[in-house]
Amino acid sequence: MTQTLRFAVAGARGRMGQAVLKVLTERGFEVALAFDKGDVIDLSGADAVIDFTTPYASIDIAHACADEGEARGKPLAHIIGSTGWMPAEEQSLKTLTDRVTIVRAGNFSLGVNMLMGLVKQAAAKLPAEDWDIEVLEAHHKRKVDAPSGTALMLGQAAAIGREVDLGEAKVAARDGLTGQRVDGTIGFSVIRGGGVIGEHSVLFASEDEIITLSHSARDRTLFARGAIEAALWAVGKSAGAYDMQDVLGFNG
Amino acid sequence: MTQTLRFAVAGARGRMGQAVLKVLTERGFEVALAFDKGDVIDLSGADAVIDFTTPYASIDIAHACADEGEARGKPLAHIIGSTGWMPAEEQSLKTLTDRVTIVRAGNFSLGVNMLMGLVKQAAAKLPAEDWDIEVLEAHHKRKVDAPSGTALMLGQAAAIGREVDLGEAKVAARDGLTGQRVDGTIGFSVIRGGGVIGEHSVLFASEDEIITLSHSARDRTLFARGAIEAALWAVGKSAGAYDMQDVLGFNG
Amino acid sequence: MTQTLRFAVAGARGRMGQAVLKVLTERGFEVALAFDKGDVIDLSGADAVIDFTTPYASIDIAHACADEGEARGKPLAHIIGSTGWMPAEEQSLKTLTDRVTIVRAGNFSLGVNMLMGLVKQAAAKLPAEDWDIEVLEAHHKRKVDAPSGTALMLGQAAAIGREVDLGEAKVAARDGLTGQRVDGTIGFSVIRGGGVIGEHSVLFASEDEIITLSHSARDRTLFARGAIEAALWAVGKSAGAYDMQDVLGFNG
Amino acid sequence: MTQTLRFAVAGARGRMGQAVLKVLTERGFEVALAFDKGDVIDLSGADAVIDFTTPYASIDIAHACADEGEARGKPLAHIIGSTGWMPAEEQSLKTLTDRVTIVRAGNFSLGVNMLMGLVKQAAAKLPAEDWDIEVLEAHHKRKVDAPSGTALMLGQAAAIGREVDLGEAKVAARDGLTGQRVDGTIGFSVIRGGGVIGEHSVLFASEDEIITLSHSARDRTLFARGAIEAALWAVGKSAGAYDMQDVLGFNG
Repeated sequence: MTQTLRFAVAGARGRMGQAVLKVLTERGFEVALAFDKGDVIDLSGADAVIDFTTPYASIDIAHACADEGEARGKPLAHIIGSTGWMPAEEQSLKTLTDRVTIVRAGNFSLGVNMLMGLVKQAAAKLPAEDWDIEVLEAHHKRKVDAPSGTALMLGQAAAIGREVDLGEAKVAARDGLTGQRVDGTIGFSVIRGGGVIGEHSVLFASEDEIITLSHSARDRTLFARGAIEAALWAVGKSAGAYDMQDVLGFNG
Repeated sequence: MTQTLRFAVAGARGRMGQAVLKVLTERGFEVALAFDKGDVIDLSGADAVIDFTTPYASIDIAHACADEGEARGKPLAHIIGSTGWMPAEEQSLKTLTDRVTIVRAGNFSLGVNMLMGLVKQAAAKLPAEDWDIEVLEAHHKRKVDAPSGTALMLGQAAAIGREVDLGEAKVAARDGLTGQRVDGTIGFSVIRGGGVIGEHSVLFASEDEIITLSHSARDRTLFARGAIEAALWAVGKSAGAYDMQDVLGFNG
Repeated sequence: MTQTLRFAVAGARGRMGQAVLKVLTERGFEVALAFDKGDVIDLSGADAVIDFTTPYASIDIAHACADEGEARGKPLAHIIGSTGWMPAEEQSLKTLTDRVTIVRAGNFSLGVNMLMGLVKQAAAKLPAEDWDIEVLEAHHKRKVDAPSGTALMLGQAAAIGREVDLGEAKVAARDGLTGQRVDGTIGFSVIRGGGVIGEHSVLFASEDEIITLSHSARDRTLFARGAIEAALWAVGKSAGAYDMQDVLGFNG
Repeated sequence: MTQTLRFAVAGARGRMGQAVLKVLTERGFEVALAFDKGDVIDLSGADAVIDFTTPYASIDIAHACADEGEARGKPLAHIIGSTGWMPAEEQSLKTLTDRVTIVRAGNFSLGVNMLMGLVKQAAAKLPAEDWDIEVLEAHHKRKVDAPSGTALMLGQAAAIGREVDLGEAKVAARDGLTGQRVDGTIGFSVIRGGGVIGEHSVLFASEDEIITLSHSARDRTLFARGAIEAALWAVGKSAGAYDMQDVLGFNG
């Protein structure tokens, strides 16, 4: 039944695009279109687009989804795993959420999305004057943005738990004479090397104890499978902006 | 006000006893009695006993608390951090909980007790057929029991989350031809070396991702401070069996 | 040139066998025979056998290699990655090393084999009265033996560095009232869960500091590639017993 | 005999100064002078100065050592644990090494100094085109410079192993659109929080495996003890610039 869903895959020559195509094929889904930079985006045969590209490309694809959805009289599902969004790009995407069913996530795994809930709780329970929060992430050497989208999501979960604004609390990099750490900030640190799929840790450090909540991904088909789950969930939903917490039923 | 509380410290020559005495002194509390193996236990000057010894000794001390409490007409507080309890020993202690206000915990830190709640949730949310749970702990070379009381507490939290019995799910050590891991079990592994104060990790491992929830203690005064907090909370409460979750208000 | 080498792959239906076949195919090697339990072992078309099975099966295969090598007048290469060897099985294999070029290793990765050298040095430099050595390993839930062959290799490297016998120094599992850690022992602990390919750590713990030397494998094709390198090295060598340190030129 | 050695302790009100004073007292050494910012530096009663302050203060102290040494006709020992040196500050210190026996180290522990040797070897053996090197460190929230002196020492060890210049290879912080990792670089990342005494890891990451060499310090008396060992070694040596590798006999 769901197997009648037809997919388009953006960034089809990239590592994540390849992983998505592999899992779709294994599970017997129809791939109506596999496209990459420079290709024409003809979504007429697709119900959902899975898109691990860049914010710039994702906005173009969302436009194509909006147009096709209007032609068809019902919204397409656009599953976005691109990371490294600038505020202006976020704004551009937002203008399309009344015409496309967008699920955007920094990470499509069950594990990371469950971890977000735990991070939020821990941040709420551990007082900021005693406990410092730090987010550490490691990825392969080909990754072009830092910190990772997932690290920012986890930092955001901590900020929500603490009822602070991540933009203000965030300390992104430390080098040289930094001075003492400021209470209430949320620090990020970034490792890049080899083929690391994705490692994330959130540390809560007090004077005498440290709590660490971590996630390790072994294979990027993990994210491909999560994105496909998101598409299955999104098709048929109203246009709007959703995230993986909605898909997994963790929001309320 | 609370500073009028008078303490007895068991195992006073041990490392934890020393740490408790140090913190009590720093905070200006009266130490009515500091005793160790072979000493007479005269609790007439004490309101609360802090006891990091062995189950065998703790039962004796609980008897002394019960007798003194009856003589005085109100229960003493007995804060027990001893670990390695056999079922028969637990039973012996239980017979005294109607006459002593007992707070027993495998670990007195805020961090570990908060972690227990997170472990319980994660275990409830991550299906046992896909996610294997393992508890890893490391302690100093002088520790005589394994796994640590804290590791067992964390395993118990996982078992509750999964609605299984830890006694049945527990796999305590692996050596030789073990065969494949059985789904639904909770494995324990133990590191001993040097001066490690206490490291605990609970792993949730699926085919493609791992979530790790960890706690690291840097200094044993952390546990001394927690035990003193427990005593402050317990004095004046009815006789009964309590744990650190009660003290921190995490139970309901 | 080397591409003219013809391979036989044992345990062809297993995970490592599959990984070996995949890498051989990718690299354009001829697979003369892929066999598994119950199949006839006809090595007439093969120069080298890659064998990740069990000690029991590996002895049979080594016999087949010996016979074929004698018939042909030059030894076959038998690359053995099976783990969990009993002393009697080791003895059986030894009787064949004058007729087969055997490379046996607990681990075929460059990383682990380099780590062995570092572990040996650290164990030699850090005095046993101050520094406790522990080996920790984690593997997927399907692994049937513990500790892993790699963990034992790393423990052996530590034992050599310390000039002790691993058989005597080894403490394999801790559960219950273990008593204090004995100076000079080498402890092992074992985690099993999910799809973990292979994690190994050697800890050197003193009263106030810990050194950890770790290896993490992301994909089992890593071991397949190492085993193929070993075969390329072994073909043409005299019969004998070799290990990965010989292949990598780390022995002298 | 060595107990007749008389010490001066700089930064006596700081955490490391306090730790040095505590260990000196425990071991029965005479503390001729304990001084801090603003105090007069009268070294007439001291044979060695232990100095965990700042580069700026350390240069002043080295001048005082030089003057006192000349007056006395033999050089004083100046043990420097200050970190965060600018090139100009290093130059100033250098001008004094013909009149003072200076032991300067980013870290005075046996463990870290042994680790440096292992890092150098691993960096030499693992080809830069396949293996990326990253240095990660974590320290308490009061630390004012980043990366730590120890992290830079470990990075320097890796650079020597690879025969590259750390100044050119170093990538100090990653934030935003960084682009792909450049082969041959050595990345640093920094965590700050709570009371962490000092955690350091050097990662070697290839496409399919990761080697991690780590050090964890539990108590800052560790560094105090190492600095005192350095002083015992330095007193009586010729004026010059030494490091902890010299003290431990690891340099040739």
